[in-house]
Formats: sequence, structure tokens, C-alpha cells
Amino acid sequence: MAGRRPGQFELIARYFAPLAKSFPGAGGLKSDNAVLPADPRHDLVVKTDTIVEGVHFLPDERPELIAAKALRVCLSDLAAGGASPYAYQLALALPSGWTERWIADFVRGLKADQRRYGIVLCGGDTVATPGPLTVTVTAFGRVAHGRGLTRAGARAGDELWVSGTIGDAALGLLAARGRLASPVLERRYRVPQPRTALGPRLVGIVSAAADVSDGLLADAGHIAEASRLALAIERDRVPLSREARRLVEGNPALWAAVLGGGDDYELVMAVPPRRRKAIREAAGASGIDVCPIGTFTAGKGVQLTAAGRTVRPPRRGYVHF
Amino acid sequence: MAGRRPGQFELIARYFAPLAKSFPGAGGLKSDNAVLPADPRHDLVVKTDTIVEGVHFLPDERPELIAAKALRVCLSDLAAGGASPYAYQLALALPSGWTERWIADFVRGLKADQRRYGIVLCGGDTVATPGPLTVTVTAFGRVAHGRGLTRAGARAGDELWVSGTIGDAALGLLAARGRLASPVLERRYRVPQPRTALGPRLVGIVSAAADVSDGLLADAGHIAEASRLALAIERDRVPLSREARRLVEGNPALWAAVLGGGDDYELVMAVPPRRRKAIREAAGASGIDVCPIGTFTAGKGVQLTAAGRTVRPPRRGYVHF
Repeated sequence: MAGRRPGQFELIARYFAPLAKSFPGAGGLKSDNAVLPADPRHDLVVKTDTIVEGVHFLPDERPELIAAKALRVCLSDLAAGGASPYAYQLALALPSGWTERWIADFVRGLKADQRRYGIVLCGGDTVATPGPLTVTVTAFGRVAHGRGLTRAGARAGDELWVSGTIGDAALGLLAARGRLASPVLERRYRVPQPRTALGPRLVGIVSAAADVSDGLLADAGHIAEASRLALAIERDRVPLSREARRLVEGNPALWAAVLGGGDDYELVMAVPPRRRKAIREAAGASGIDVCPIGTFTAGKGVQLTAAGRTVRPPRRGYVHF
Repeated sequence: MAGRRPGQFELIARYFAPLAKSFPGAGGLKSDNAVLPADPRHDLVVKTDTIVEGVHFLPDERPELIAAKALRVCLSDLAAGGASPYAYQLALALPSGWTERWIADFVRGLKADQRRYGIVLCGGDTVATPGPLTVTVTAFGRVAHGRGLTRAGARAGDELWVSGTIGDAALGLLAARGRLASPVLERRYRVPQPRTALGPRLVGIVSAAADVSDGLLADAGHIAEASRLALAIERDRVPLSREARRLVEGNPALWAAVLGGGDDYELVMAVPPRRRKAIREAAGASGIDVCPIGTFTAGKGVQLTAAGRTVRPPRRGYVHF
């Protein structure tokens, strides 16, 4: 029976149902729907992201990494909401050339991330498409009732803090496209590391948060806009990896990619000055570095300074079309 | 600016944010995620469906009808779960040729159905695709805690009941493809009518339920299988519309499409005989006809009879690939 592919029901039973085994409301993926039980203590934080082959990931990408990316871009948004991962729905549109081996690898990627992030499949849909592979994840997180974080809520005087390092993914995309050489950063682009360990610890500390998916300036700007404030960012305080710093020092034009490119999946946060110690402790407890890079003030717009001078900001963020 | 198309943020602000206006947790679609507030009394019933141009709807389909179909296939599953429509996430992958006018029409379709079914947009994603239009809806419904309906739960002696009429959509698909003439049934295929008025009224009356999306025999068979029972269906009790009856009487081979074809979006239910009056009253209150067409017994498998004789069942259900 070489080359025979499993049918839809077989595919679900063999590959996807095991991913949903520990979620009672999934009904073994044999039901019309999933049931998330009533929970008086938690709000449900919900995020949907679609990734398309050739648009959001490279056509030759490994199935495990596609699975990881599909899940992690959503997990990053849950972290920005202060929520802990809970469950997810998966909608998979498979192009005509799919193989059982591809599915097995993709599912292995999901399984590894379910374990890593403490999330479980609870339902979804699998269809055929004449187009490219398209993966949509709707992820659910939980946060104490009324305590979820949003982009609105920053106050004048709050500092802008950021986790990890910025720009690695944008430089990594240039590397993946052969425009510069950096296997380390290429991997950073291909495999996002959502800050799920930090996100839930931010509740009660930060006044607003967002994840860096569209680019630092764009996403920090979204906080300023939603909070009706102005924001000044000091470029030279933006944390760079050693590799990114080497590249930017060699070619300062790359600052545009660092500050304007997307896919970092770090968190940007508005932090009242009296919470400096708390944010450092929360970051320490989650093993993630954080540092302040700017200040919110009354007003409007995002201002970027370098060596005390105002710098013209690079193109603002990744726009999907 | 003729021919200029709005960018992603503009599109969301102008067309999608108004659909989410009445849902506070959507944050005007300016947030990283949506918040569904804690609810101690209701379980959340969740369903994801993807529809792809040229696979699940015809390439020339009107945008309003694509919107209706995307929402309604999910609403049908919520009804089968006994849940009332609550909110939904929308993931839209737009092919390169999209126009603002297409978006406006699509959104008009969503808006009409939001009003009709009492559901509201709470978030989602919009991306570009080099492939066909792909629409994924994740719909949320609410049902009293612990009272949701599933396919499992039927008992030996329960009757199989069905709502509305069966086979219209499958015959309508043949009509849409020019294989038979019936504008009435073609519309039935193009515009599903989910039984959202009936579904929530079934709680406490039926012992199991499913919607007829893959075909009557397949979906009724899913209840039998999930409930570990056998099921006998009397073909001549299956309710047909006048138009479907005319076509089937003219060409009995069409029974295969009627019983095996999908997309009816009626409900099939396991009903204990003592609940006959209750199910008729629930149906009456929702303005939908229901009738018994079979019986669950100990054992396994689905048996179809016509005029007292066992009939070989047609192909079982719509398999997506």
C-alpha cells in the first residue's frame, strides 16, 4: 500500500486525537465541538493567527518548525495578555501534495510544544486546499478574572521596558533569504520563543503590554496610541544580541530592520517607576532579561533618539498586505 | 485614488472593528487578543471550520453568501451541542485579487448574520495568500454548565429524530453544478440554515445530538458509534422537501445523494420515547419540524430499510479528502 494516504477520519484518529487526549472537553476529537468548562475565577484570553506557506514561513520549512511557529505566535500574544496557555484549536488546510510523513513530523512539532508550554489541542478542522499550506491556530489562555493585560493602561511617567533582545528575527529573515550570513539569527527567525514564563508574572506589575510581532517601534507605538500617550525611545538602550550588535556596527543601515522588523516575539511593557524592582524580580523568576528603553509622556507619537539626537524612525512595522 | 486598497490596519478599523463594537473584550480589535470574561454558569462550546474557495464553495460565490456559509457551518455545530451563539473569531486569507468592494460585501454578510443569530466578532486575523480565499471561523457558544449535548449518550430504545428536510443541499449541489435543474435546492446548498433556535431547547430532552454536515447516514452513524449502539433507519420516514421528493421519485438513484450527501445542517437527535411530547414542543416553539426516522438498539452499525427490506446504504458521508 505504498503511497496510500490516510483519510480524514483516520488522520484525526491516528495523529490529532492523541494530542487532545488530556483535554476532557475535546471528546477525543469525535464530537461536533469542544467544551471548555465554566470557570468562575478566570477570564479566557483568545488569539487567532494564520500562517501561510511562502508568506509567513519559507516554502522549504521543516514541518516541526511550522507547527512551532503556528502555536508560538499565538502563545506570544497570550503572554502579552498576562495569560497562561490553556488549550488551542487547529485549522489545517493541506495542499494536494501532503504526505503522511509530513503530518507525522508536524504533529511531532505540536506535541513537543504542547509539553514545553503546557497547552493542549481541543479541536479544529482539516481540509484540502488547491493553494499553499495554511495553518490557523486559535489559542486560549487563562488569567485571573479582570486582571488581563492590554495595550491601553500606560500612564505618563511609565517607562517602556522590553524583554530579551530585539532585531534578531528581522536580521534572521535577511539571513534566511541569503542577504547576510548568520545561522544563529536565522534560527531565531524560524523558531520564535514566546515569553510565556514572563507574561503571567507581569499581572499586577505592568500597566500595559504587547508582544513584538510587527516590530519594536510599531508595537511599542500601539501601546502609546491605545494609552493616548507619546513615547520616547532611546535607540542605544535597545537590547541587542552580540550577533545583532556585530552586524549593526558593521552596517548601521540594519537599524531599520532591527527596530522596524517583526517576529521578535519579545514583550514590550509600560512599567511605573515604582515597579522597577518588581519587574526585575518577575523577569529573574522566569529566567528572562528585561531592561528599560524609553518613557511615556503626555502627547502623541513615537520619538526615537540616538546619542541625544532625534533620529528619523525607520519604516514602521510589518504590514501584512 | 481609484484602485487603491486599504492597508491591514485601515481594513480592520473600517470594516471589522464595527462588527466587534458590542463585545467589550474585543478591545475594538486593537488588542493583541480578546478576553471572554469568567462565567461561572456556562460552559463554552467551541467549533472551528475552514472553508476554501473551489472546495467548500463555488469560485463565483457571492461574498455575502461565503460569509454566511463560514459562520453558519459553525453555528450548526453549536446548535448540535445545545449551545446559544455567543462570539466568534475570524481568520481571513485573502487572495491577491481582493477588492475593497469584496470586503464590504463580505462584511455586510457577516453583519446580517450577527444580527440574525445573536453572535458578535471578537477577534481574528487577516493575511494575504497566493492561494484561494480561505475563511476560518472559530465560534463560541454558551450552554448551562455540564448540560452540553454530545454524540455519545444515546441509549438502546431511543429513537432517532431529525429536523427539517434531508437531502436538499446535496441535490442543490448537483443543481449548482448543472447536473439537475432546481434553483430552490441550489439556494439551500449555498445558504445553510443552522438550527440555532432548536439546539438550545434540546438540552434536557435529547440524549445525544449531531448536525447533518457529512450526510444523514454518516452523522447519525456517528451518534450510534459514539454511543456504542446499532441504529436502524427507515428510509421512507426520512423527511424530504416537496422538490426533493419529486426529484427522487423521478430518479431513485438520487437517494444516494439524499442520504449520503452533506451540507444539510439539520440536527439528528437520540430521543427517549418518553420525551416524544417534549421534543415536539421544543420544535414547535422554534418553528422547526421534527420527526422520528429510526431506532437505536444494542449492537453495532447502521441498517437502512425501505418498504420493510434492508437496503444497501449509499456511500457514507462526505470525506474531505
